[in-house]
Amino acid sequence: MGTTEDSFNDKDHVEQAPDIAAADPARRNFLQGALAASAASLGALGASSLAHAQTELKRSTISHYYVPATDKTVHWGYFSKNLKPLVELESGDFVTIETLTHHANDDAERMVKGDPGAESVFFWDKTRKGVDRRGAGPMDASLFGRGAGEGLGVHICTGPVAVKGAKPGDIIEVRILDVKPRPSANPKYSGKSFGSNAAAWWGYHYNDMIEEPKPREVITIYEVDTSSERDWARALYNFRWTPQTDPFGVVHKIIDYPGVPVDHSKVKENWDVLKNVRVPIRPHFGTMGLAPAEADMVDSIPPSYTGGNIDDWRIGKGATIYYPVSVAGGLLSVGDPHASQGDSELCGTAIECSLTGTFQLILHKQADLKGGVLEKLNYPLLETKDEFVVHGFSFPNYLAELGAKAQSEIYSKSSIDLAMRDAFRKMRNFLMTTQSLNEDEAVSILSVAVDFGVTQVVDGNWGVHAIVKKSLFAGGSA
Amino acid sequence: MGTTEDSFNDKDHVEQAPDIAAADPARRNFLQGALAASAASLGALGASSLAHAQTELKRSTISHYYVPATDKTVHWGYFSKNLKPLVELESGDFVTIETLTHHANDDAERMVKGDPGAESVFFWDKTRKGVDRRGAGPMDASLFGRGAGEGLGVHICTGPVAVKGAKPGDIIEVRILDVKPRPSANPKYSGKSFGSNAAAWWGYHYNDMIEEPKPREVITIYEVDTSSERDWARALYNFRWTPQTDPFGVVHKIIDYPGVPVDHSKVKENWDVLKNVRVPIRPHFGTMGLAPAEADMVDSIPPSYTGGNIDDWRIGKGATIYYPVSVAGGLLSVGDPHASQGDSELCGTAIECSLTGTFQLILHKQADLKGGVLEKLNYPLLETKDEFVVHGFSFPNYLAELGAKAQSEIYSKSSIDLAMRDAFRKMRNFLMTTQSLNEDEAVSILSVAVDFGVTQVVDGNWGVHAIVKKSLFAGGSA
Repeated sequence: MGTTEDSFNDKDHVEQAPDIAAADPARRNFLQGALAASAASLGALGASSLAHAQTELKRSTISHYYVPATDKTVHWGYFSKNLKPLVELESGDFVTIETLTHHANDDAERMVKGDPGAESVFFWDKTRKGVDRRGAGPMDASLFGRGAGEGLGVHICTGPVAVKGAKPGDIIEVRILDVKPRPSANPKYSGKSFGSNAAAWWGYHYNDMIEEPKPREVITIYEVDTSSERDWARALYNFRWTPQTDPFGVVHKIIDYPGVPVDHSKVKENWDVLKNVRVPIRPHFGTMGLAPAEADMVDSIPPSYTGGNIDDWRIGKGATIYYPVSVAGGLLSVGDPHASQGDSELCGTAIECSLTGTFQLILHKQADLKGGVLEKLNYPLLETKDEFVVHGFSFPNYLAELGAKAQSEIYSKSSIDLAMRDAFRKMRNFLMTTQSLNEDEAVSILSVAVDFGVTQVVDGNWGVHAIVKKSLFAGGSA
Repeated sequence: MGTTEDSFNDKDHVEQAPDIAAADPARRNFLQGALAASAASLGALGASSLAHAQTELKRSTISHYYVPATDKTVHWGYFSKNLKPLVELESGDFVTIETLTHHANDDAERMVKGDPGAESVFFWDKTRKGVDRRGAGPMDASLFGRGAGEGLGVHICTGPVAVKGAKPGDIIEVRILDVKPRPSANPKYSGKSFGSNAAAWWGYHYNDMIEEPKPREVITIYEVDTSSERDWARALYNFRWTPQTDPFGVVHKIIDYPGVPVDHSKVKENWDVLKNVRVPIRPHFGTMGLAPAEADMVDSIPPSYTGGNIDDWRIGKGATIYYPVSVAGGLLSVGDPHASQGDSELCGTAIECSLTGTFQLILHKQADLKGGVLEKLNYPLLETKDEFVVHGFSFPNYLAELGAKAQSEIYSKSSIDLAMRDAFRKMRNFLMTTQSLNEDEAVSILSVAVDFGVTQVVDGNWGVHAIVKKSLFAGGSA
């Protein structure tokens, strides 16, 4: 990514009005800044290992869009092919996207107060919510009475961003150029960032506790370095969830609806927590992906073939991810920002911490993929500096596989064993197609050089990833 | 481990007759070399992160034993508390142990020929085998007719080595000071080492193939660097298994008995394989552990609480592993040497390659463990330079849990999901006991900083490991 960033900061770049495609004038004012790159510097952008599959870029300017997170730019708890794109950019353009953690109201003092974007999103009084729908459920909360959308899907997603000309069968490559924690806007916490880790009812540990009271939900608030001078976070305090009454009067006995403001007079803060423990940070986006074609409203929790809530901490700065396009424009949305997460996301969440990312989007047209390594890619493929990472799920495309009730049934049908099977098949396919190996060769490599890990066991559609080092293929051209 | 090796090479060390405990004179001649260390240098040996739990060493000399691999020093395919120890060493002593891969006869020219130890072990003519029993099954092969021991357990294990004074409830710490590939003894291949990767019927892929003929078993022979100047292996050729008739006349249609000599006139060698692919090597011992008390003869394949066939590639040079002692003396055996393996060991084996390891064994008496980090440790705990690794299994102690038929039932009851549950519980326990965390603190760390991976899905008792970085606890003393 070094070359990309270098050209991005090139002094030859000039500011330019952004190529705003969004027709809605109300959405125009959050698109700020622009950048043009000379055609000469474009060559450097193709320095990916999959470069030979790349669509050649012929334009001479590149735009840089800025999408802040506000009540007007986020959709909460769902992906949808019916969302109007905020930006329609051209392949090769840059976009900086602010993302907000849906756990910010666990400590609004530190994560919402004084921040106009976060305040607009989390606004909630007796009569109105800044963002009413939270989840893919019914707007009238007729299912569980929790609130609009029912919390069937929880992630605040910023977007969508469309790529001009993207059609089903194409691939959108997303290069993550930078990821930065969002500083607290409260002057009391100037220069600091914060995150929340919720050990919640959907966690893997929840029905398997050893200390009383059982079960219980616990929120731990972490302080995250914003200066980039340290690479670790520290726990500040924790508290056990107690029934919280939201401004509409609904009581939430458990964490069943995102963005409920926690009344800190109703919980007991314990500041004697994780003393002397430093958590190495791995800033990344838990949820990033394209809109799937299979349904109009899709719960943001289960990941699928177009990405979404993969929850792989490797999806951070310097990484590139390739998504199969399912609907026109692709419709990229980004959310669920994490300061750190371990493989498995065991208790249900990471250190959920608002982040801002800068991305470059490259469109690979289906016609250009023929015979290349991205041909027929039907899952989200991650590339880091040293590795390729394939993402397996219990159900690779659960919306198509599980029928009309897919969005509820996925929560009872997942297992790590199913995800392992899928990861094995995908990595075998990856090795056979990208390295021109036969099955016998691929299977040997799978056993002696590929590492399988547990991505997450908390997102409905459980995940196993398979990692292969690029250095395996350093021996020469195939 | 650096300090240990420094003292090991100290010029003050003088050669000394080994303190041979094995009464059997026939076994005495393979115990070579000895080493004495001054009491002054002993301090350096305790530089482990778990040092405060260590038994203080009071002796002024340390012995170094050498155990070659021969037909007299190996037991093939099983652990047993009834095996007479080859060596009874004192806590703090060193031992160098040769290990042989049970796949050496896949290419005897490269991995057996000219090597007196390997030739004695693999010897097999019409009337006699160098090592008759291979596996924990009946000696008369009345079960399947494959051969003595029936191949119910396949690993050539060198040992056992006893630690004087070790009793159930104690912990034996094994420090892996060095691991070296065994050079081919065939002058044609001077300076080279070789390994075999078998994609076999017990592999995860076996009933899920895409190319014909299905199913099939495939052996890939790798060349492994012996000079330590390169850190990768290369495939030489592969072949598909064809029915092989052993010297006793039994036909092996599949790889159902270890050490069957492959007749290369009966297979088709394919030398156009994995061109330009380099496999980074990770030399380690797939099988290392103590004898369990639960049964007299224990199949070497399923790992359990005393270790055994864990198949974690991190069990290599520089690593330390702590085993709970189940029987008097502990009875450490080492085998299943691997040049490289990925997490999952997907096709059934690694690059199976004979290795020689040098170890230091430290006994921690139960009485000294009280209140320390190793108290009540009931699973194999791995420590590397930067990490602690906890090993979960589908059944943490399958011999005790599955009753009289445990050794057959384990093969049909395993799942990654069960192993994940066990790894979660063990890592929670590890964090709570070693870092004095309460459950809420431990669960948060489990989710934001612990990585869960798939150790293996091919060893009967499947494995998931959990890794926590030591740097988490760098904040100060607890």
